[in-house]
Amino acid sequence: MIDVAALARRDTFARSLGIELIEASLGRAVTRVTLEERHLNFNGVGHGGLTFTLADAAFGYACNSQGVVSGSIDAHMIYSMAARSGDVLTATAVEISRSSKASNYRIDVVRADGKLVAAMTGTALISGKPVVV
Amino acid sequence: MIDVAALARRDTFARSLGIELIEASLGRAVTRVTLEERHLNFNGVGHGGLTFTLADAAFGYACNSQGVVSGSIDAHMIYSMAARSGDVLTATAVEISRSSKASNYRIDVVRADGKLVAAMTGTALISGKPVVV
Amino acid sequence: MIDVAALARRDTFARSLGIELIEASLGRAVTRVTLEERHLNFNGVGHGGLTFTLADAAFGYACNSQGVVSGSIDAHMIYSMAARSGDVLTATAVEISRSSKASNYRIDVVRADGKLVAAMTGTALISGKPVVV
Amino acid sequence: MIDVAALARRDTFARSLGIELIEASLGRAVTRVTLEERHLNFNGVGHGGLTFTLADAAFGYACNSQGVVSGSIDAHMIYSMAARSGDVLTATAVEISRSSKASNYRIDVVRADGKLVAAMTGTALISGKPVVV
Repeated sequence: MIDVAALARRDTFARSLGIELIEASLGRAVTRVTLEERHLNFNGVGHGGLTFTLADAAFGYACNSQGVVSGSIDAHMIYSMAARSGDVLTATAVEISRSSKASNYRIDVVRADGKLVAAMTGTALISGKPVVV
Repeated sequence: MIDVAALARRDTFARSLGIELIEASLGRAVTRVTLEERHLNFNGVGHGGLTFTLADAAFGYACNSQGVVSGSIDAHMIYSMAARSGDVLTATAVEISRSSKASNYRIDVVRADGKLVAAMTGTALISGKPVVV
Repeated sequence: MIDVAALARRDTFARSLGIELIEASLGRAVTRVTLEERHLNFNGVGHGGLTFTLADAAFGYACNSQGVVSGSIDAHMIYSMAARSGDVLTATAVEISRSSKASNYRIDVVRADGKLVAAMTGTALISGKPVVV
Repeated sequence: MIDVAALARRDTFARSLGIELIEASLGRAVTRVTLEERHLNFNGVGHGGLTFTLADAAFGYACNSQGVVSGSIDAHMIYSMAARSGDVLTATAVEISRSSKASNYRIDVVRADGKLVAAMTGTALISGKPVVV
């Protein structure tokens, strides 16, 4: 397994939003963010784009953890409840299938009380190139 | 039609990322962003979360333009090419169906040369409450 | 909980394809089909539409099990491996969230050896009408 | 362009459901079905699996029309209105992007009066093998 923390350190966009890598193992990664005022949408709740980025970051770390450059080609997300300022959201990405060309991940986003906020399914194309960290 | 520009002005997250509302009409909205270093991922290309947020903002403005509070319950996105620092990305959201309870939108994200970067399909639940701007 | 088996008995399309309800409980249902020659596509493997229908049937039984008419408004499916003639495919639908207006389900499709063939996420709108069986 | 009609003739599952190829060109295909009693679900309307298969068939013909074996790895579908027995449904698949490894299609399903019934977005992996017809 590669040094996933090194990948996360150079993930400029995710870092600028306050998204942190919590843990990583082969094909699995956990990210976390605490919702702030800057993360809210025009209805005063967490922006769907922030929740998506949290899940997408976990997905990206998990699918590249195997050491081969992998890029998302599609993602589907359902939103089951709104997140509020102050909520701590945790996204856990788990590999559900893998071939030589593509891999699939499920990423659950939950609040601190365990309630599901959003659920993503993502597909990554696997290149032949090693991840350089 | 409500004042969509007023909605966009209080969309704190989208604004903090440099995402602008370009135009809006009933059931349609266009957003734009210029990719900066802060928007990149660990591979040095535009983060999927930024592209998603750009499309999601257009979707949110378009589905609330009708004057009834509407919230995204799911979104699907395909990524067809990477975006680079300096690229100007434009997202156009168009309503493709609407009932009393839900509406569907397609949102295309293109570069300045017209090449498709990503394509989203979103579903919003329509509440009974008026949008207050 | 309503009589889900009665629902399944009048699901003309699913029955005509050989899809059977195996078990059902509140917010959960399992369906099964054995792949036959008539289920194959032009490449000689299981047609994606058959796998989708198997998962969609489990989703429909599970979301209506609560006794309120619920209809699918969107479904996302990933295909992780091809199914072959003779394969026994089992789809298990589980509710992952529920509000007064909508519910979300995940549906896994596996072969007899437990390998994942496909994975669906579905969203249903909940009407106010009781399911009549 | 390959002989797409020959592909459709050996698409056993689609044919058994009454789904016909209406026209095909490079990266584009149109399929049609007339809804019969056998296509209905437990609510007496068109089964989502039938509508999906109609769209998926158009997608499969369109993405293989280029002459390289291409297989669906994910599909997302929104349902905007129920179809009834007797309705004539037409699905049109159009390529929206293509790289050496993958392609994306949008597939609209409409009734004879032009109303949108469902809309799919699909992703196909492109193998290196020629389509043999």
